[in-house]
Amino acid sequence: MHISRDLLIKSIQHVFKALSNNSHGILSGLYIYAGNEEVIFRGSNVSLTVQYKACITDSKIHIFNEGSIVCPAKYLYEIIRKLNDGNVILEVNEQLILSITSGNTRVCLSGMSPIDYPFIPTQDHQQTGNGIDVSCNSLKYLIKQVAGACSTSEGKPILTGVSLEVQGNQLTMTATDGVIRMATGSICIKNGMGFSGSAVIPGVNLIEIVKLLDDDHGMVTIQFSPHEIRFITQNQLIESVLIEGLYPPTRNLVPTSHVSEIILNIKSFRQMIDRVFVLADYHLITMHVSEKKLELISSTAEIGDVRDTLFLEDKNGVNFSISINGKYLLSTLRCIESDSIRIRFTGTMSPLVLLPVLEDSTWLFLLNPVMRRINV
Amino acid sequence: MHISRDLLIKSIQHVFKALSNNSHGILSGLYIYAGNEEVIFRGSNVSLTVQYKACITDSKIHIFNEGSIVCPAKYLYEIIRKLNDGNVILEVNEQLILSITSGNTRVCLSGMSPIDYPFIPTQDHQQTGNGIDVSCNSLKYLIKQVAGACSTSEGKPILTGVSLEVQGNQLTMTATDGVIRMATGSICIKNGMGFSGSAVIPGVNLIEIVKLLDDDHGMVTIQFSPHEIRFITQNQLIESVLIEGLYPPTRNLVPTSHVSEIILNIKSFRQMIDRVFVLADYHLITMHVSEKKLELISSTAEIGDVRDTLFLEDKNGVNFSISINGKYLLSTLRCIESDSIRIRFTGTMSPLVLLPVLEDSTWLFLLNPVMRRINV
Repeated sequence: MHISRDLLIKSIQHVFKALSNNSHGILSGLYIYAGNEEVIFRGSNVSLTVQYKACITDSKIHIFNEGSIVCPAKYLYEIIRKLNDGNVILEVNEQLILSITSGNTRVCLSGMSPIDYPFIPTQDHQQTGNGIDVSCNSLKYLIKQVAGACSTSEGKPILTGVSLEVQGNQLTMTATDGVIRMATGSICIKNGMGFSGSAVIPGVNLIEIVKLLDDDHGMVTIQFSPHEIRFITQNQLIESVLIEGLYPPTRNLVPTSHVSEIILNIKSFRQMIDRVFVLADYHLITMHVSEKKLELISSTAEIGDVRDTLFLEDKNGVNFSISINGKYLLSTLRCIESDSIRIRFTGTMSPLVLLPVLEDSTWLFLLNPVMRRINV
Repeated sequence: MHISRDLLIKSIQHVFKALSNNSHGILSGLYIYAGNEEVIFRGSNVSLTVQYKACITDSKIHIFNEGSIVCPAKYLYEIIRKLNDGNVILEVNEQLILSITSGNTRVCLSGMSPIDYPFIPTQDHQQTGNGIDVSCNSLKYLIKQVAGACSTSEGKPILTGVSLEVQGNQLTMTATDGVIRMATGSICIKNGMGFSGSAVIPGVNLIEIVKLLDDDHGMVTIQFSPHEIRFITQNQLIESVLIEGLYPPTRNLVPTSHVSEIILNIKSFRQMIDRVFVLADYHLITMHVSEKKLELISSTAEIGDVRDTLFLEDKNGVNFSISINGKYLLSTLRCIESDSIRIRFTGTMSPLVLLPVLEDSTWLFLLNPVMRRINV
């Protein structure tokens, strides 16, 4: 087939990210299928499979014969990236050699048979009734807010996943590492067709999916199956495996009352944590709230210490002090697209509750305190 | 003293690069001296010492008391980088604590006594007669062209250095790894005062010096001493140790005749090597020159091969084939600021000679062939 280098690069980039760096055999390859009406590119690391469809109605493609091949992804991508702009001709012969011709450059790559390559069965969820539609941008924002709170240790595999729950017209995601932090948030379903259900998706896959989904104002269809979940847009089809097991209940972790509440400018707070973080052994930062000020204190043994002060936008309740892990606080604040944040102090041994200031946002973040040191 | 954050960042950045990542004790520190007329910042890894001078005539500094300190460089740099813009107050107390105050931020860093910190004696080379002046930009370009050809193995320490030779009004640099490649080039001395001499400088230091020297159209004074060499600009003073020993003669390595000469567009040639490089086992690339064309061929076992063709700008002499290490060819071409390059073929077992097309450039690069494989 003939295809423009631009479109070829774009298509390969879409699926390339799904490939693992250290995969061998067929999974080190990228699947290409040229059909009558479309060219399909697919990459997979077993846990996550990504497919991109380029339509021949796009005048940048001309297909002569139907066919498919799996070819070494890393080499294919590097070569295409380095070709001069213009038309690229891809041909596959009977010995499974993919030849790539562009201008004065001719590359031959040994391919593999596509028979064993991971396959994504297509279903019409309007018929099966196991899917929902959500806004692509809302979905990406929800994942960013929640997925970072997953556990990264394999001790309890279920906690390395994010819980997805569909109920009524709400999609809710929840993640926790079971020790320090918990995050949750919801978005509205645009077209649910009465479906309700739940699934636990590997957090690393969800974080990858945020990067994979095109930045657009369109919709994503999420299709639930017993063992997989699919995210479908016009040109993309992303399939992730699920983590088996029951996600632990998290609702009872959220404190129902608080003794103090402050409201802060997120940007200034973030910059301030960033500064004190330079001298924070074990990421430990102590917060002192008194009157209308928040003071952060941290130190590094034998090197020095830092103190920084920020004026609060608002405060209700008593003064308080608490020591927290600044790393988790900083990574949470980085995911919040808002000017201000509400922080509730619920006691020296209970979690801080981070909440949006605006009523129409639905996320919530819990951060457990660190045992306080005597001298800071 | 009071100093603007901008100027402080700039000063620290200048000397920070000289510090090694894994240095301990006093050398993990950055030296700061506040005098009556200037603030001096200094960083050192013993082999290379860099000093930057900020003048108090610059209204961005106000000094209250003379004093000096050595403080933990990594922490200092990170903290200053993260401060808000504005004025920074630096104070040193008798316990060698450096306190940094800026806005609502206050940092205390444990310092070290500056007594043991590497020192650069200053001399006036107009009196000692051991120095030369050259254009800063020409010097940087010369180093880029030559220093990459140094050996990186410690087998023959002298070859990890670059030979500098001052004779008449020429500064000549030469480097070779003793096996595959040799590079040499010259620039004019602007103000030599009759000095002639030579030195061998660690190649890694020269490469660092290119990054350290400000991009400007000014002059650099190079001062030769028996054990050190200094590069001096208005605000900077960079001192490198020398490698002891006699640099081997290299003039006899350059072939005096050739059987074929081609002229190529550098940019196209570079892009072409970059492409074939994707499939080049052991960086091996075969060049075939026939009629007015250069064909490059390379391959990766079990993956595939690539062939690429480029039309020559000019050719004199016979057709030829030679196999070379593409990595060295590519890194050389990246250092040449010119549209075209002249390549001389001097025989299957002799080096390729790379030369400028323009007569007023003086560099020369030799690249020995690699034993050819039977099947490509």
